[in-house]
Amino acid sequence: MAVPDLSTQTTPGPLRLSGTARTALRPAPGAQVVGGFWHERRRINAEASIPQGPGLLETAGNLHNLRLAAGTAEGSFRGDYPFVDSDVYKWLEAASWRLAGIGPGEGGPAVVRLADDVARIIDLVAGAQQPDGYLNTWFQLTKGGARYTDLSWGHELYCAGHLIQAAVAHHRATGQTSLLTIAGRFADHLVSAFGPGPDRGIDGIDGHPEIETALVELFRETGERRYLELAGYFLDRRGHGLLGGGAYWQDRVPLRRAAAVEGHAVRQLYLLAGAADLAAETGDRELHAANERLWEEMAAGKTYLTGGLGAHHDKESFGDPFELPTERAYCETCAAVASVQWNWRMALLTGRARYSDLVERTLFNGFLSGVGLDGRSWLYVNPLQVRDGHTDPGGDKSARRTRWFRCACCPPNAMRLLASLPHYLSSTDGEGLQLHQYASGRFSGEAGGPPVVVNVNTDYPWRGRIEITVEEAPEDREWTLSLRIPHWCRSHSVRLGGQRLPAPAEAGWVRLRRTWRTGEQVVLELDLTPRLTEADPRVDAVRGCVAIECGPLVYCLEEADHQGGGLDRVVLDRTAPLSAEHRPDLLGGVTVITASGRRRPEGGAADWWPYRTAEPVADPAAGSRAAEDEPAADKPAADRAAADDAGQRLELTAVPYYAWANREDGGMRVWLPTR
Amino acid sequence: MAVPDLSTQTTPGPLRLSGTARTALRPAPGAQVVGGFWHERRRINAEASIPQGPGLLETAGNLHNLRLAAGTAEGSFRGDYPFVDSDVYKWLEAASWRLAGIGPGEGGPAVVRLADDVARIIDLVAGAQQPDGYLNTWFQLTKGGARYTDLSWGHELYCAGHLIQAAVAHHRATGQTSLLTIAGRFADHLVSAFGPGPDRGIDGIDGHPEIETALVELFRETGERRYLELAGYFLDRRGHGLLGGGAYWQDRVPLRRAAAVEGHAVRQLYLLAGAADLAAETGDRELHAANERLWEEMAAGKTYLTGGLGAHHDKESFGDPFELPTERAYCETCAAVASVQWNWRMALLTGRARYSDLVERTLFNGFLSGVGLDGRSWLYVNPLQVRDGHTDPGGDKSARRTRWFRCACCPPNAMRLLASLPHYLSSTDGEGLQLHQYASGRFSGEAGGPPVVVNVNTDYPWRGRIEITVEEAPEDREWTLSLRIPHWCRSHSVRLGGQRLPAPAEAGWVRLRRTWRTGEQVVLELDLTPRLTEADPRVDAVRGCVAIECGPLVYCLEEADHQGGGLDRVVLDRTAPLSAEHRPDLLGGVTVITASGRRRPEGGAADWWPYRTAEPVADPAAGSRAAEDEPAADKPAADRAAADDAGQRLELTAVPYYAWANREDGGMRVWLPTR
Repeated sequence: MAVPDLSTQTTPGPLRLSGTARTALRPAPGAQVVGGFWHERRRINAEASIPQGPGLLETAGNLHNLRLAAGTAEGSFRGDYPFVDSDVYKWLEAASWRLAGIGPGEGGPAVVRLADDVARIIDLVAGAQQPDGYLNTWFQLTKGGARYTDLSWGHELYCAGHLIQAAVAHHRATGQTSLLTIAGRFADHLVSAFGPGPDRGIDGIDGHPEIETALVELFRETGERRYLELAGYFLDRRGHGLLGGGAYWQDRVPLRRAAAVEGHAVRQLYLLAGAADLAAETGDRELHAANERLWEEMAAGKTYLTGGLGAHHDKESFGDPFELPTERAYCETCAAVASVQWNWRMALLTGRARYSDLVERTLFNGFLSGVGLDGRSWLYVNPLQVRDGHTDPGGDKSARRTRWFRCACCPPNAMRLLASLPHYLSSTDGEGLQLHQYASGRFSGEAGGPPVVVNVNTDYPWRGRIEITVEEAPEDREWTLSLRIPHWCRSHSVRLGGQRLPAPAEAGWVRLRRTWRTGEQVVLELDLTPRLTEADPRVDAVRGCVAIECGPLVYCLEEADHQGGGLDRVVLDRTAPLSAEHRPDLLGGVTVITASGRRRPEGGAADWWPYRTAEPVADPAAGSRAAEDEPAADKPAADRAAADDAGQRLELTAVPYYAWANREDGGMRVWLPTR
Repeated sequence: MAVPDLSTQTTPGPLRLSGTARTALRPAPGAQVVGGFWHERRRINAEASIPQGPGLLETAGNLHNLRLAAGTAEGSFRGDYPFVDSDVYKWLEAASWRLAGIGPGEGGPAVVRLADDVARIIDLVAGAQQPDGYLNTWFQLTKGGARYTDLSWGHELYCAGHLIQAAVAHHRATGQTSLLTIAGRFADHLVSAFGPGPDRGIDGIDGHPEIETALVELFRETGERRYLELAGYFLDRRGHGLLGGGAYWQDRVPLRRAAAVEGHAVRQLYLLAGAADLAAETGDRELHAANERLWEEMAAGKTYLTGGLGAHHDKESFGDPFELPTERAYCETCAAVASVQWNWRMALLTGRARYSDLVERTLFNGFLSGVGLDGRSWLYVNPLQVRDGHTDPGGDKSARRTRWFRCACCPPNAMRLLASLPHYLSSTDGEGLQLHQYASGRFSGEAGGPPVVVNVNTDYPWRGRIEITVEEAPEDREWTLSLRIPHWCRSHSVRLGGQRLPAPAEAGWVRLRRTWRTGEQVVLELDLTPRLTEADPRVDAVRGCVAIECGPLVYCLEEADHQGGGLDRVVLDRTAPLSAEHRPDLLGGVTVITASGRRRPEGGAADWWPYRTAEPVADPAAGSRAAEDEPAADKPAADRAAADDAGQRLELTAVPYYAWANREDGGMRVWLPTR
């Protein structure tokens, strides 16, 4: 079944800078993803994921709560969390991006039904809103309306933020003002209820950031500076103990002075997205610098190979630097979404390629793993290892996909990102077009006249060849086509009309400046040779291990491909070559990487105790590196080496990490020991 | 200041088998610790830890709650948890063991004051008890007395269990019946309120086991079989979904059929202690086998080198097999206490040395680390690593010692174990005496006549020499002195009157059977050469690392001994010898182990990303082990090797793990990379 319009849809984005914003780059005026990898994921999002929303929100009670608050239903509040309204808003945002540019009654029955669902649910939201603009069913229904009495945990402004984002999306995508009016009334209520000055009531901030970035976007959509100012107030009152001063809430130290990301990962990342928005709109250099500083700290020591963020299940928080356990990696899907949002803002703010490097890595790995191949099953957490003998606790934090969660924040978050994905792929700087991510589609930029437009055709990430054809270009003017050379890429080439161009990457960009002619074709070739990757030695969790990567994709072993399991006993042979084969039949079509290794015999320990005396190392005087690192060839060590080398040789089949947990349950590993 | 009587006190134990119990060994009739390592720890426990109890329990509100329940005070319930009564009971148990054998008015002012405190607090407990025997201040004061309405979380029977254990201790130690009467009334109420049969009210079990082992001990103390039967009922109703079937509560599967320890570690371990008690008293082979099976599963894959148990902060639970992260090791001090209790029951039940091996390891490492050297500061969690750059969250789960916790379960638990420690050191089988642990003291066993008695003199664990002098022995009868040869010990010798005896360890025991004469001296020598230890390769967290051990002690590096910190960049040189030096001035007197290593330079990663492509390995055909494991000597790899080998050489100073976190804050590591 074809999706009406999806492949020709120009999706407006969740980020539209104001005219006075000071950024290196600006979102491109229009982008379409018309085929290839991301088109297929967006098709599933449009056909399978988004249409399920209304039914799931009904079953889970979210819509019931809105009716209760409106007085049009009877019963009691349903759901286990105070922020259940936000699930509705995130879904509305996703559905709105899906409807972008489709007129009333257009797009076929499924799209018409979706538009009807959106209108119906917006009516429910309108009904639940209180006369002064306030809206939060949890507080209205269970707290006797005692607003703002639990800012640390209540999520009232967090929900308001998601409402605002949904309203902006709905307005941009459909031109309708129904939801924007609701959001504006709530925002105006917040402006009057919070903030500095003697006539304001509450000097307070929300435990869960989100309102900051939403208010900046509402300012962009409406031009009303009071929203921008309130966002600035919320940002700068944080870190002064209004929430008790805990790191969990990023309230220990003001963000401008913070040296490290800390606490609850999603909260930290939404806060940083808001801080980047504020830096963009105000030109605040201190805030700009804080964003870059915190990003560097996070990237260098707190980011998983998959782009996943948040090491701890306990409090869903960042760990210490280099504390990146694989088996209990939390890596919430929402944190991946938030990371993409923040990184994209940073890419625009600075123009630096590294932010889009992390966007790419996150999209293809730690984000996409959260979405089942069927679009109807989800992961809340995205660990890098599931052990042999894993006892699954079930529930939200399970390593098995689930249709919906008690805490259902992730699925609609993933839906809204996929629905607005074209927005994150390209930018303009007024001098041309920057391609940050490679997807088949149509991308346009500005260069002082009518838009410059290119068509991209590629099988990326399965093939490294990216064909870029100029579709519209001024005949009389030079402009620059900038191509990001991914951080992982060790070799690339650029051809124009078959001729190889000198095209060194400078700070991650190849910049091709010329007077382009319509029909000219640039072919960028990125080396997709599969590779082994190792970690900084301070990442204790993966010492002595390598991961298999190919292009932007992180790979993993799954028990489903390894009869007999025993993945925790697998050793990869670093001397054997890796080979790649595309398998259209497997997991929706993936390139499989084959490696060679062996499986250690079971029962490594001599008896009941899993620790043993390390054999002494002989002949320190010899001093060679091998002698330092290897047990000497004395009798027991030699025996042990022989025993270690024993074990069944086997072919290892690695599949893209994003596709894991879509077959039968079992073990999984990203990082593989090499000895 | 000398402790009155402490060194001549014969402490009765928390475990006294009934006459019909079927076990391989029985607790020894009397044991005194008169000097050395454990005497010093017990002295601090008696002088510093236990006397603080009443004041801390007053400040924290526990005693206030008892007065409230008695109607002799006004106010509201204090404390954050429903189980705060148990802190009082555990302290009463500790204080009771401390008072063992000391008559009224004896022992000096501090002891008299302690006895007064005990009597006063027992009066508070008596006042709070309800007419039918029920007692739980949380339910009485905050739940309108709605008993047993939240068995999953309410901890009513858990608190009852600790009351019973305290009462048994108080009765055994002092001969007084005041607390035993209270506990018996509560137990009788439970017998009437719970259990099978048409006239019983509730078919239910407590979310937190503890009542099981307590009821068995109450049966032993009183001879009343109804308590034993109720314990059996609670044990066997578990695993049938009465608590919802969750692994957290060990309610997923009946313990008799369980294949693995799971869920909340302390709950699992208390349950197993009760199961071992039941197996001992009933001769139930199935239960016996389940205990051994679960122990093997736990020991082989879920036990830290320190004996610590419980890998997850989240839900305080066991992890998957071999999931033993060092930096977030939970290893609750209470789990170590519970492990000692269970292991000691297993040692008696089976006679197998391995259980006492784990007792020793736990006592000297994962348990003792929970107790500050001053006896006034505590660790709730006992991780094996604190990272450079660690951001301490503060609070109960901090890696910094705290004077008391909001959830104050651990400190009084540690106090009661130290106060009753002599009980865990030796046993008898009717044919002689078994020394399970080595401490200076007086130990007696039975051999068919008057007690056989030995005096032990040793500086263990600082020296391996253990002198055992026969003090009382029948002149006409052979009996067996059994000496446990610790699992970690690679070489030992036994001398009698200066003559070396052939003394092979069989299944962990050296058994010396003869007609002993008074004054004869056996000298056991255990090899205390410092050693490096490595883990089963499935323990991903410590791959490529070794730990320093010496005798029963696990060692660690602390930042306090390594100027400039950077412990996460330290590499230990396996070729360099380890040396040991006793430092009476340091940390209360410890043997320090010195090793050699280097510190890698900072900034391992080339740029912002902590992962890099692993250099290819050349010449697979060569096939030598070195070639497989080492990067080939091509140019980049050689450069890298040179860079890796760079870094400042330094002397590494390792201190016993139990003594960590008693100086300034900073990093700490047990496991050290070797390359």
